[in-house]
Amino acid sequence: MDCLKEIKQTLTEENIGGFLITNAVNIHYITNFTGSESILLITPDRDYLFTDFRYIEQAQQDIPWIKVVEKKVSLERTICGKLKRLKIKKLYIESLHLTVYQYHEIIDGNSGIHLIPTKGIVEKYRKYKTDQELEKLRTAISIAENAYEGVRKKIQAGFSEKRIADFLEYEIRNRGGQRSSFEIICAAGKRASLPHARATERIIEGKEAVLVDWGASFQFYNSDLTRVCFIDKISPDYKKIYQIVLDAQDLAIDSIKPGRKAREVDGAARSYIEKKGFAKCFGHGLGHGIGLEVHEGPIINSRSKEILEENMVFTVEPGIYIPGWGGVRIEDMVLVTPSGCEVLSRAPKKLEEIAG
Amino acid sequence: MDCLKEIKQTLTEENIGGFLITNAVNIHYITNFTGSESILLITPDRDYLFTDFRYIEQAQQDIPWIKVVEKKVSLERTICGKLKRLKIKKLYIESLHLTVYQYHEIIDGNSGIHLIPTKGIVEKYRKYKTDQELEKLRTAISIAENAYEGVRKKIQAGFSEKRIADFLEYEIRNRGGQRSSFEIICAAGKRASLPHARATERIIEGKEAVLVDWGASFQFYNSDLTRVCFIDKISPDYKKIYQIVLDAQDLAIDSIKPGRKAREVDGAARSYIEKKGFAKCFGHGLGHGIGLEVHEGPIINSRSKEILEENMVFTVEPGIYIPGWGGVRIEDMVLVTPSGCEVLSRAPKKLEEIAG
Repeated sequence: MDCLKEIKQTLTEENIGGFLITNAVNIHYITNFTGSESILLITPDRDYLFTDFRYIEQAQQDIPWIKVVEKKVSLERTICGKLKRLKIKKLYIESLHLTVYQYHEIIDGNSGIHLIPTKGIVEKYRKYKTDQELEKLRTAISIAENAYEGVRKKIQAGFSEKRIADFLEYEIRNRGGQRSSFEIICAAGKRASLPHARATERIIEGKEAVLVDWGASFQFYNSDLTRVCFIDKISPDYKKIYQIVLDAQDLAIDSIKPGRKAREVDGAARSYIEKKGFAKCFGHGLGHGIGLEVHEGPIINSRSKEILEENMVFTVEPGIYIPGWGGVRIEDMVLVTPSGCEVLSRAPKKLEEIAG
Repeated sequence: MDCLKEIKQTLTEENIGGFLITNAVNIHYITNFTGSESILLITPDRDYLFTDFRYIEQAQQDIPWIKVVEKKVSLERTICGKLKRLKIKKLYIESLHLTVYQYHEIIDGNSGIHLIPTKGIVEKYRKYKTDQELEKLRTAISIAENAYEGVRKKIQAGFSEKRIADFLEYEIRNRGGQRSSFEIICAAGKRASLPHARATERIIEGKEAVLVDWGASFQFYNSDLTRVCFIDKISPDYKKIYQIVLDAQDLAIDSIKPGRKAREVDGAARSYIEKKGFAKCFGHGLGHGIGLEVHEGPIINSRSKEILEENMVFTVEPGIYIPGWGGVRIEDMVLVTPSGCEVLSRAPKKLEEIAG
């Protein structure tokens, strides 16, 4: 599926003058342009990238087939001028990525223009990964795993959460990653009950579990993994909960195949965790699509209406969080294949592999 | 000036039911809450933070004086429910930070509600730094400078731009920074003509100038500096252009004081660069305010309508960019004082100090 070609065809068929792309990631997906502060106008004939001085030279190098327009005063007013010259009267907009301010600027600058809200048109294409994208995702995963492997051996009592996160960041970059794909979560002991805990200066004690949620960005594609590790032995109650989460993840992974409802995959893990008595301790969805963004389609939770299809890539990350005690989350990335799924990540996660 | 108190007063005086804060940085500024995916509703009586499961425990810890509401289905629908119960009929919105989608969700969910667009209300307060904020900014600068000092000595021919950026990132974190405050720019030789060049795998040669634009984030406050360094001697033409930029920066800094128009400060540097024959080579504004965001108010460019006032902090960063040749930019951070300004950054920048 060629996203740009199909969009142009739709514009022609529905007699729409253009499509204003304001989501920077969608602009990157369509054009490969990587500067910020830019807006793309797709029309049935030509495409225009509006950007500021800082990115003009870069844009002309990156995307010579698109007309690069330097902004004057503001991007919105520059676009208004172009819309008038092109006599565009009906314009698709990305309603999730156009602000109320931008909306009014365009309306006020083009009397009679009709802005038609759309939602997730480009994002729909992004759910299905091409071979080229898969290659980048695999590299992003292997960089993250190698970096973790390197840091794992260094984790010891007396280190702060932040120090571990910083080591990991360095190793990710050192192994060819652009950077970590999000702020690395490193939460020891009780702090692991915060699903999105920041790494703090808190010093790790010998007997605590350390939850690490990290990923690498490689050529703008991202990985996202979670593991728990121990400096010392694992306590019996932690073992019990860890095994429940691991089994729940296995059940979810086993249920993945084309045609399966995403909410059924979520349900496979969730119902098991509920059956084991932790119904209220798994408050987030099972996973999320991942690619140019760490969180993108498909949505994998109990309310999802998505049907899994080949070449979708998403995370599977059940968790049990108990305030005052701590938390367990295990997160891997999977690719939907014709007959089931391939687990793309390989970092060790069996109980005997994660002990100190 | 207490931002929250004054906003509540305005709401009462103007008979507005509430103010919906959708800019995450503004939420942080007002509440100190640091999770993402949240929306703040200020009303004359109580304030409500809508967030998802992942941040509930954190929010309750961080901001016990605000009512934390867990989202159901979507943040927007959860807010709609609250707006109804509070019988809010007129609501201020942040037009720069509310999407067209959110706008429609709120309108559709609350028949008869009137959304009143506002622009930059909280941002206006953020322009003036308190002593506490200044302390954090000074630390963010000193972390960045120490990190650069450490890396500067290591820069040698044969290193890639990215390797230098990665070292710098590590040193920033190692010295107490949360992270670099933006993707570090490291551009050698001709690549320095791209004002926002990414650090690439390109290997630095002995005779090239290396432009580094970096900053550190400390307790969410940011620094932003630019220096050029040399591994070897500086060529005569580079010296000439460098000195012009440095003199232009001096002229701008000397012109700063309360009551001065921001565009006059821009003009002090710009007219000097123009006089020296490089009118078309300085295509961006002279600087920008900086604090919780790397780019915030006041705007310092030739079209700015801002008047400088005490306790504003901004960058002064003139540049000369020549495609095919390279570029020079020198960037420091200044604080407007009662009688002029204090240059907050101290990294060496005289010609004799930057040579290899």
